[in-house]
Amino acid sequence: MFLRDIISILGGEAIGEVQQSLEGVGTIEGADHTRITFLANPKYRSALGLTQAGAVILGAKDRDSTSKPRIVADNPYAYFAQVAQLFSSTAPRPGGVHANAVIHPGAIIPASAYIAEFVSIGANANIGERVQIGAGSVIGDDVTLGADSVIAARVTVYPGCKIGQRAIIHSGVVIGADGFGFAPDFQADAGCWVKIPQTGRVLIGDDCEIGANTTIDRGAIEDTIIGNDVKLDNQIQVGHNCTIGDHTVIAGCVGIAGSTRIGKRVMIGGAAGFTGHLEVCDGAIVSAMTLVTKSITEPGMVTGVMPQMKHKDWLRNIAHLRQLDNLALEVKAIKKKGSAS
Amino acid sequence: MFLRDIISILGGEAIGEVQQSLEGVGTIEGADHTRITFLANPKYRSALGLTQAGAVILGAKDRDSTSKPRIVADNPYAYFAQVAQLFSSTAPRPGGVHANAVIHPGAIIPASAYIAEFVSIGANANIGERVQIGAGSVIGDDVTLGADSVIAARVTVYPGCKIGQRAIIHSGVVIGADGFGFAPDFQADAGCWVKIPQTGRVLIGDDCEIGANTTIDRGAIEDTIIGNDVKLDNQIQVGHNCTIGDHTVIAGCVGIAGSTRIGKRVMIGGAAGFTGHLEVCDGAIVSAMTLVTKSITEPGMVTGVMPQMKHKDWLRNIAHLRQLDNLALEVKAIKKKGSAS
Amino acid sequence: MFLRDIISILGGEAIGEVQQSLEGVGTIEGADHTRITFLANPKYRSALGLTQAGAVILGAKDRDSTSKPRIVADNPYAYFAQVAQLFSSTAPRPGGVHANAVIHPGAIIPASAYIAEFVSIGANANIGERVQIGAGSVIGDDVTLGADSVIAARVTVYPGCKIGQRAIIHSGVVIGADGFGFAPDFQADAGCWVKIPQTGRVLIGDDCEIGANTTIDRGAIEDTIIGNDVKLDNQIQVGHNCTIGDHTVIAGCVGIAGSTRIGKRVMIGGAAGFTGHLEVCDGAIVSAMTLVTKSITEPGMVTGVMPQMKHKDWLRNIAHLRQLDNLALEVKAIKKKGSAS
Repeated sequence: MFLRDIISILGGEAIGEVQQSLEGVGTIEGADHTRITFLANPKYRSALGLTQAGAVILGAKDRDSTSKPRIVADNPYAYFAQVAQLFSSTAPRPGGVHANAVIHPGAIIPASAYIAEFVSIGANANIGERVQIGAGSVIGDDVTLGADSVIAARVTVYPGCKIGQRAIIHSGVVIGADGFGFAPDFQADAGCWVKIPQTGRVLIGDDCEIGANTTIDRGAIEDTIIGNDVKLDNQIQVGHNCTIGDHTVIAGCVGIAGSTRIGKRVMIGGAAGFTGHLEVCDGAIVSAMTLVTKSITEPGMVTGVMPQMKHKDWLRNIAHLRQLDNLALEVKAIKKKGSAS
Repeated sequence: MFLRDIISILGGEAIGEVQQSLEGVGTIEGADHTRITFLANPKYRSALGLTQAGAVILGAKDRDSTSKPRIVADNPYAYFAQVAQLFSSTAPRPGGVHANAVIHPGAIIPASAYIAEFVSIGANANIGERVQIGAGSVIGDDVTLGADSVIAARVTVYPGCKIGQRAIIHSGVVIGADGFGFAPDFQADAGCWVKIPQTGRVLIGDDCEIGANTTIDRGAIEDTIIGNDVKLDNQIQVGHNCTIGDHTVIAGCVGIAGSTRIGKRVMIGGAAGFTGHLEVCDGAIVSAMTLVTKSITEPGMVTGVMPQMKHKDWLRNIAHLRQLDNLALEVKAIKKKGSAS
Repeated sequence: MFLRDIISILGGEAIGEVQQSLEGVGTIEGADHTRITFLANPKYRSALGLTQAGAVILGAKDRDSTSKPRIVADNPYAYFAQVAQLFSSTAPRPGGVHANAVIHPGAIIPASAYIAEFVSIGANANIGERVQIGAGSVIGDDVTLGADSVIAARVTVYPGCKIGQRAIIHSGVVIGADGFGFAPDFQADAGCWVKIPQTGRVLIGDDCEIGANTTIDRGAIEDTIIGNDVKLDNQIQVGHNCTIGDHTVIAGCVGIAGSTRIGKRVMIGGAAGFTGHLEVCDGAIVSAMTLVTKSITEPGMVTGVMPQMKHKDWLRNIAHLRQLDNLALEVKAIKKKGSAS
């Protein structure tokens, strides 16, 4: 592929032209002359002089930072992502249902959908055009999967849940398992937890990606709702009755307790946590491993994490953390005495 | 269903009667006139006047808080849970083994059990009456599943493990994988980790629920033991040789290192952690994202988590946290000087 | 098995001999006279006098700490692990492909490999000698599995990934799902996240063990690389383009963001986290639940975790943590005033 081929598809301005056809994308350090790379972060500008890449995607302000063949784009990183998609796109798998799949006769499967071996699809499931479902996935009764969605191998979608168009659901994901709801019924030493049936659903919008082994629980009575263009990394837990707004991205290992309402364009760092029944406003940013215990009402970053220290420094400091109240009282007493004297 | 039908099954006192048959349960804000709701938390008392619900479950002290048809119950929340179970209960799936399941001839499967497609059941597995096993689950050799247990799709139970009666095991759960045990055998730069075979089992009591993608490792030599009526949320990791007492509830994403002994009626918040070989007494409560590094010897809540702050406040404070020891020394020096002067 | 049988296989020095054949291993407290136990940690020396074990493995300095039949070994714990392996070893499962597996005709499966029911193996997959693959696992196109590796039930290996020899991969593991990479392409209120195709692979060395439900993402452009003798516990998330050096051990629930480079012989406690693009030097030790946000450049332990407190103590102290900067300023002001006076 030549620069002229790329700009004919994606737009942008080409300066110069590569000698030989480009075969793919690469990092600024790792690309050879058959690869196209990009410059978005100014801190890599110095690396640009050393790159072996055959061509570079860059912004208008960097248009003269190199003499290599290049494409000038408004958003070099997003442009690069689209170029990478061009190189990695493959012909869609032709539709068909593997002989070793078990499909309920009441399910709707268009001819363009591909259903792999050992897939189970329940009654009244409604599978969209060109959907692909990988081996061993289990699609419950009354599930709807939107057109062009790709369900990897070994995914579970519980009955009644809906996933929009163009979803990418990775292996091990479980959508629609019961939320965690029990009423305590104890007197003295006897009693037990009484299960609250979880009769809501999980509703997921269009253009979402859900990472490997992430779990999203169905609502207790109402539904758990994920918006459009929401990107969830691996091993995330979303509790029952949560809502997550459009364009929100959540890194791996995050846990969100039930009934938390997360706004649009929120960015959540890895292993952050949310206690339940909170509201997180549009545009909020939560740092990695921060536990959010109060609603976030204005955009901007929220952090609450112990900094890393050498273990002996930690030991030295941490004893005082347990006595911080006393230390503050001492300082107050000293001030008072100082004022009095 | 009318109030009189409900109290004939569950007891309690009905005051008034609904005009039309109730069709289900609802939240105090979301229920319409076909739904029954409940009042347990006094902070929702003001919402009671606005609810559209057809009927309300409430405690004796709230019996006159509404003129709606109502049921007076000792424990309105637990009563509500039971009513919800009434509405959501479905006829049990008739027994049978799907033609696409692979059952070892030495396994015991009663006629009342339902075994879905792509299920694998090993030698000498003993499946209880009315057990249901979902598509793609793998039940190892010598596993025992108690009567009326429901195993969702895509669950793994490793050989030798036992699960009691009325369990609900959600999709993606792995019970009985090897615990994490290796002996270091390094000299200078050579050597390796020597695996310690994990020959114990996982034994789970009656009435337990285990959430999606939770993992419980088998014991190294002795067994990992989960009591009765233990409720585990999603994505929990229980290490080898742990014991968890009856009625304990654990929220999602909690990690429990090996050989920790957790008592009865313990409540553990989401993403909390336990280093190994600890004891946690009956009735302890552990806050979300708290790392327990010392045994807990008395009931009550234990917490250890950084509070959330605006990121710039965190930056401002955190530098001093690294110097807390010095700050304490300075205060000590000032006090000494103050006393001396 | 007698002591003489053990030392003929594993070396070491036997002192005395057991009366009856040993049947297995046991803990120092739990073993009866048919079991062999070990003493490695001096704090258990007092328990040695009480053990009911039939024999003991111990170090040279403890050779006279008991009169029981015993084996003196350089590394009693590693020796014990090897003895446990002797007792737990079973005859390898004979090779064969279950009739209910779906194998692409282009896959290479040696006669010595065992492929269970409901396994799916893709085109050009190259399965090593004596490999065992459990029920419901999905092995993608072009995957290589080294000789003697054991893949449990319900494992996914995405296309193109390579696993070395003698691996043990537990149930629910997902290797090679897409890394989390999206370029933001938003203007004002419009726009979306553009997916960056994840075209790298996961390459895993020899002698690795990977715990249940752990996920390792494929590289974005280059590969995610796991060395030899790396031991990963359950529910770990390894992001795209990470590298993990030989002999590193990682406890459960750890999350490692993308492009982090972890050295050799690193030990990482449970639920620790790593933000991306860090370097962690050989021999580093990271405490449980510590978030590593800066590269670790020298061996030794790094910690950053709030200590557990009674909740009321936590409340008392935590308010001051939010005001630590002010407290430090007050102390500074007092000192200045003190010096001036």
